[in-house]
Amino acid sequence: MEGKQRVSKETLEVNLRELKRQYKEILALNLSLNMARGKPSPAQLDKSMELLQYPKSFTLRDGTDVRNYGILEGIPECREFFGELLDLNPDHIIMGGASSLNLMFDTLASHCLFGTGGSKPWSYYKYEGTPVKFLCPVPGYDRHFTCCEELGIEMITVPLLKDGPDMELVKKLVKEDPMIKGIWCVPLHSNPSGVCYSDAVVTELASMETAADDFRIFWDNAYGVHHIYEEVPLKNILKECAACGHPDRAYYFFSTAKITFPGAGVSLVASGAGNIAELKKHMSAQTISHDKINQLRHVQYFGTPEKLKLHMKEMAAELKPRFDVVLRKLEEGLSETDLATWSNPKGGYFVSVDTMPGCAKRVVSLAKEAGVVLTGAGATYPYKKDEADSNIRIAPSYPTVEELEKAMDIFVLCVKVAGTEKLLNEQ
Amino acid sequence: MEGKQRVSKETLEVNLRELKRQYKEILALNLSLNMARGKPSPAQLDKSMELLQYPKSFTLRDGTDVRNYGILEGIPECREFFGELLDLNPDHIIMGGASSLNLMFDTLASHCLFGTGGSKPWSYYKYEGTPVKFLCPVPGYDRHFTCCEELGIEMITVPLLKDGPDMELVKKLVKEDPMIKGIWCVPLHSNPSGVCYSDAVVTELASMETAADDFRIFWDNAYGVHHIYEEVPLKNILKECAACGHPDRAYYFFSTAKITFPGAGVSLVASGAGNIAELKKHMSAQTISHDKINQLRHVQYFGTPEKLKLHMKEMAAELKPRFDVVLRKLEEGLSETDLATWSNPKGGYFVSVDTMPGCAKRVVSLAKEAGVVLTGAGATYPYKKDEADSNIRIAPSYPTVEELEKAMDIFVLCVKVAGTEKLLNEQ
Repeated sequence: MEGKQRVSKETLEVNLRELKRQYKEILALNLSLNMARGKPSPAQLDKSMELLQYPKSFTLRDGTDVRNYGILEGIPECREFFGELLDLNPDHIIMGGASSLNLMFDTLASHCLFGTGGSKPWSYYKYEGTPVKFLCPVPGYDRHFTCCEELGIEMITVPLLKDGPDMELVKKLVKEDPMIKGIWCVPLHSNPSGVCYSDAVVTELASMETAADDFRIFWDNAYGVHHIYEEVPLKNILKECAACGHPDRAYYFFSTAKITFPGAGVSLVASGAGNIAELKKHMSAQTISHDKINQLRHVQYFGTPEKLKLHMKEMAAELKPRFDVVLRKLEEGLSETDLATWSNPKGGYFVSVDTMPGCAKRVVSLAKEAGVVLTGAGATYPYKKDEADSNIRIAPSYPTVEELEKAMDIFVLCVKVAGTEKLLNEQ
Repeated sequence: MEGKQRVSKETLEVNLRELKRQYKEILALNLSLNMARGKPSPAQLDKSMELLQYPKSFTLRDGTDVRNYGILEGIPECREFFGELLDLNPDHIIMGGASSLNLMFDTLASHCLFGTGGSKPWSYYKYEGTPVKFLCPVPGYDRHFTCCEELGIEMITVPLLKDGPDMELVKKLVKEDPMIKGIWCVPLHSNPSGVCYSDAVVTELASMETAADDFRIFWDNAYGVHHIYEEVPLKNILKECAACGHPDRAYYFFSTAKITFPGAGVSLVASGAGNIAELKKHMSAQTISHDKINQLRHVQYFGTPEKLKLHMKEMAAELKPRFDVVLRKLEEGLSETDLATWSNPKGGYFVSVDTMPGCAKRVVSLAKEAGVVLTGAGATYPYKKDEADSNIRIAPSYPTVEELEKAMDIFVLCVKVAGTEKLLNEQ
């Protein structure tokens, strides 16, 4: 904030008066804009409508009728399709229902109820008064944190650096504390800051020494094929874990929520042979099979992984102009101030903005009053507590480019108002 | 067995020789028939193919696009449809995914993890060494029992009488033992014996005094509209519970697994306002929403509950000739013996046969060797333990009428062989 300190109180007051005048003008417009939700736009959804013409036949190559009961782990055709797309062993994939979050929650809940690999049920530790802990790279995905909170798993934040979690800190913590049983990771185009894990980070996660034998990496590759500006490679965590002698360390989650239809796609979990056998055993008590018609629908519609990737290029073409607006408006409005920094994602669904400490809530509140709904400040932190009150998640996917132009002008103005207020208060 | 006792050893031996001769002839045929699985036949599935032409529009009356995220509890249109069909309050319905078993397991698991209505998590009792117990009317549905077994819930059997569970015993047990936290019920055309609960039984279940405040009825109305010979009415358990001052005593489960496509239909849970709020809270950590496209697909395809009922009449027309064969063959082959008794279901998916004690496993094994797969003996009891070794579940839905004719001839023969062997051994 070196530059700012030279600005006099009088100048700040003049600036703030002008900013508030502009803000008042906007209030009068009674706008209703929303940059809160990581939802595909209707134009994106339209691109998958032909999916619903499938399946055109219902018999698998082994003769199974997908319209009837059976095949808990999902149809082989679908496991092979995603195995090829993601470089996973189809035999170590279980297809879930429409939601990978559901698979993550259920996997975590099953560890709480039953333990894993012969370990004590994780709930048992809570019962004894020493709850299990998870590492949460921040800023991160609020629904991961909600899973932990719901299940009584204590969350320990670790900073998410530009190539992954702060591995020095992670390695130290997991080596020391046997109650740390896992870590949440969104390894590509992370929510919200767009971080992509480097090969070195993947290797360290796979190889590091952990005090807990039942330490698990929850690898939510939600944006694994969701490149916008640049296709970013990702080292294969499952292979790396196996190579490092920890074949059951990681659970790999994926879904087509943001490929075809959110809430009506297919999801999967992949892991080592031991974990998969264990999950199947638990899942066999929970259900008979997931929606095989929808699995076959997706396989027949896409045909090949290459076609899915082409489909994602069309999605990127919808998203890019929206991200362009957000990044351009931030650049134009704030690059010459010290009021905020922001991410430059290569893909995914979000732009992450860090205001000056203590300003995020104020910005979100000012924006809301002016008709622009943002994700709640703090939502990207466990227990919704961003100690610095600085991080704001911007979701550009749903609004139109025109709406984003307006919404971002307001956002930038709100950052300026809140920042100038703070500078004045500090004088 | 009064009649049989008059038969001499010599006669039994002659009889058994002849039966074994017939059995040997059948072995030579190398048949492969299956009466094990409660699966709809391909002809039944064909009747729902038009479902997959829907939805024809994707916007709900409130403007929501079902192709995108949201509406955890399911679309109002779908909750209203099933509310009308089943006389349930749509506001107290949550739509699940394709499997009601999944909803049952998750509800039970959530009680183990979190308790219900402010009670202790049910798992805690297990950690303390005094696990929670459930009443299991027998014979019953093996997958209900598997849920309990998986979650460490002890099962106590109670006899299923011709109009429901033995309520004298049920009332005594739940009044005395606060560790009994629930009961499994399939109130219409029960699996396997086709029992339909009388109004009096429903009222007793709703009104009875329970030592546990968090006692819950798991009301799996799996065959709620699956009438074959006769439409059987069912008293509304949720209304009855509310009228008796226990609005949150029962969870009502239903699915279209055997209405449209098993594993690709929609499911629901209904309960009192308190339970539904609690389930929604837990579910909101688990997922964002279930498959709304499939919900709307079902609503638009059926249009009205009346049309669904007509659809079920077509299903019944497929099932009736199959049940006719099973019942006729049992009647022709066994009614003049004392070797077995059986159910005369009015609907559902099964015929339940009780052999003489100690014969069920032998019958299943003989049939298997002769190429007829039956549900494993004991499967209809908790822990797969039918102490009397007497109950066998016959599933007539999947094979063709011709296959059933053959399979039932073999079944009857196997019952005779096993029964005659036993009578000889007892001499």
